[in-house]
Amino acid sequence: MNDLFLRACRGEAVERTPVWIMRQAGRYMAQYREVRKKHNFWTVCRTPELATMVTMQPIDRFGMDAAILFSDILVGLPAMGLDVDFNPGPQLENPVRTSADIDTLHRFDPLTDLGFVLDAIKSILKEIDGRIPLIGFGGAPLTLAAYMVEGGGSKNFMYLRGLLHEEPRSAKKLMSFLVDTQADYLNAQIDAGVQAIQIFDTWAGHMSRQLYREFVLEPMAQLIERVKRPGVPVIYFIRDAAHVLDLLSSIGADVISVDDKLTLSSVAEMIGPGPSLQGNLDSTVLLGSRKSIHEGVKRVLEDAPKDRGHIFNLSHGILPPTPEENAAYLVETVKRLSLVKET
Amino acid sequence: MNDLFLRACRGEAVERTPVWIMRQAGRYMAQYREVRKKHNFWTVCRTPELATMVTMQPIDRFGMDAAILFSDILVGLPAMGLDVDFNPGPQLENPVRTSADIDTLHRFDPLTDLGFVLDAIKSILKEIDGRIPLIGFGGAPLTLAAYMVEGGGSKNFMYLRGLLHEEPRSAKKLMSFLVDTQADYLNAQIDAGVQAIQIFDTWAGHMSRQLYREFVLEPMAQLIERVKRPGVPVIYFIRDAAHVLDLLSSIGADVISVDDKLTLSSVAEMIGPGPSLQGNLDSTVLLGSRKSIHEGVKRVLEDAPKDRGHIFNLSHGILPPTPEENAAYLVETVKRLSLVKET
Repeated sequence: MNDLFLRACRGEAVERTPVWIMRQAGRYMAQYREVRKKHNFWTVCRTPELATMVTMQPIDRFGMDAAILFSDILVGLPAMGLDVDFNPGPQLENPVRTSADIDTLHRFDPLTDLGFVLDAIKSILKEIDGRIPLIGFGGAPLTLAAYMVEGGGSKNFMYLRGLLHEEPRSAKKLMSFLVDTQADYLNAQIDAGVQAIQIFDTWAGHMSRQLYREFVLEPMAQLIERVKRPGVPVIYFIRDAAHVLDLLSSIGADVISVDDKLTLSSVAEMIGPGPSLQGNLDSTVLLGSRKSIHEGVKRVLEDAPKDRGHIFNLSHGILPPTPEENAAYLVETVKRLSLVKET
Repeated sequence: MNDLFLRACRGEAVERTPVWIMRQAGRYMAQYREVRKKHNFWTVCRTPELATMVTMQPIDRFGMDAAILFSDILVGLPAMGLDVDFNPGPQLENPVRTSADIDTLHRFDPLTDLGFVLDAIKSILKEIDGRIPLIGFGGAPLTLAAYMVEGGGSKNFMYLRGLLHEEPRSAKKLMSFLVDTQADYLNAQIDAGVQAIQIFDTWAGHMSRQLYREFVLEPMAQLIERVKRPGVPVIYFIRDAAHVLDLLSSIGADVISVDDKLTLSSVAEMIGPGPSLQGNLDSTVLLGSRKSIHEGVKRVLEDAPKDRGHIFNLSHGILPPTPEENAAYLVETVKRLSLVKET
């Protein structure tokens, strides 16, 4: 097995920097768009053969060092009793706004209620056949709470912040419920065979430092504690987070994945010794010229701190208008430049 | 004149903390919604009598320590040759994407092309009759560039960042054009009589530190330099900016206005000695209980550093669903608690 990714997560020596791309199975690929012409997003998530097909498309075409399960962080919401539609952003018919709403949520059983995810994992692992690791993933409690309380995406997270300010006990009950369900869900993914876990906290950086400390840090640390297993690294993704990065040393993640607001060397300084870093080329660079991509890759590789592991990735998901040849050039350039760097 | 606001901007001693609210003339007020039933947004901006009426509504009702001109940061775009519609977010028919697009932009004359703004200022000043200061304002170059290049609001500023990465010389030409036009425009506002200027850099915090250093910091410093006059403080508003706050000591603003991501004491520490601070109560607190508002105000006042001026404000614009009585309670509470604190 090419275990560069796993070794970098653990901070071990590597011959070159491993690379994968958030949303590497996605709309920028013609093959993916073909599949989506025939099947909607939910159907692809829920059909192991289709999830396997799209998970493997970027691996076969671009040769990333890790595959990531094709799914969505909101895939468990229906199992909690919440209906979600994608058109294309997620929309919930009944947002969770009160303590009573929170009490109606089901603590589902991943084995029975999300069996299609576990079947997809097993099917993908068969297809990968031990060549590279498979990453499982889920949403962080705060980020799931954001969708559940707002009822979809949001510009200012008015309802979520309202709940945190006005009903701190209800908010903590919701976070605690989400720690439980996500621990169950991510542990089921590990039992099904994923070799690493990424927890997406896409919206946590929109909370103030005070709210992050009061409502996010401790539940996240608990969740990570509950999914940690020997040999299965946990990656915590957060963005827009310069105001809380110094708090993350205590969160327990093996890897912190960040956006491009700060260089990886500054991030390492703020977090302190310990976790490997994942990131952080600005996704929009992939819309530009080869020259810019080359320079961007070079800058990230040179800046990545040498006292810990580094997994190359973007600042956020790859953008749908990205030309496929630029994704190919990115992977190839990371592999080439990071190898040269070591010799 | 109640000059608490101006003295706090200059860092002078004050008997109590001055307070105003971003978007204090706006949709949360029934009186404002009445005006907007009859006139659209552009008409209110362009009709001095209407702009005066809505500017004064919150002053008469809530007693803020400063008025702010009712207008919009995009009001100058048509004078540059760009059509803007509000439905309700701004939409441009012809976004500015290339060097050739930038060359077609007009450097307008505020006296002739934006005379309605200057007339509104004179009309408002007559109405205020020297009781409190009037704040003029405009958009920062990067934030205006964001709207112009994206063609409206944006989630990821894909086109703007694309321009910065791929066409740095064109991007700098655009920033330089915007420094020129905004310097003309803000100086015309000062000539018309505003007693302070706020420059809104709403989107600059979405740029990485590297992009901020390369494209934002120097043009902003130039713009501030060109509008600085004795006795007319310049306020620089930026949010989501923890990754660049330490750079702002050199920007030359009398006041830095920030959101609630960090406490004012942390912000002061990052910026270093010098500018007064404006902010930074989370706007969503105003949707909640009196108890939360009271606690929030108290926390901000107690935390505000004593080595510099402080103007009380929100983290961002007041939210449309805010009950008017909560705005009243906020202003009253800031006045009461900050006075008590001094004695």
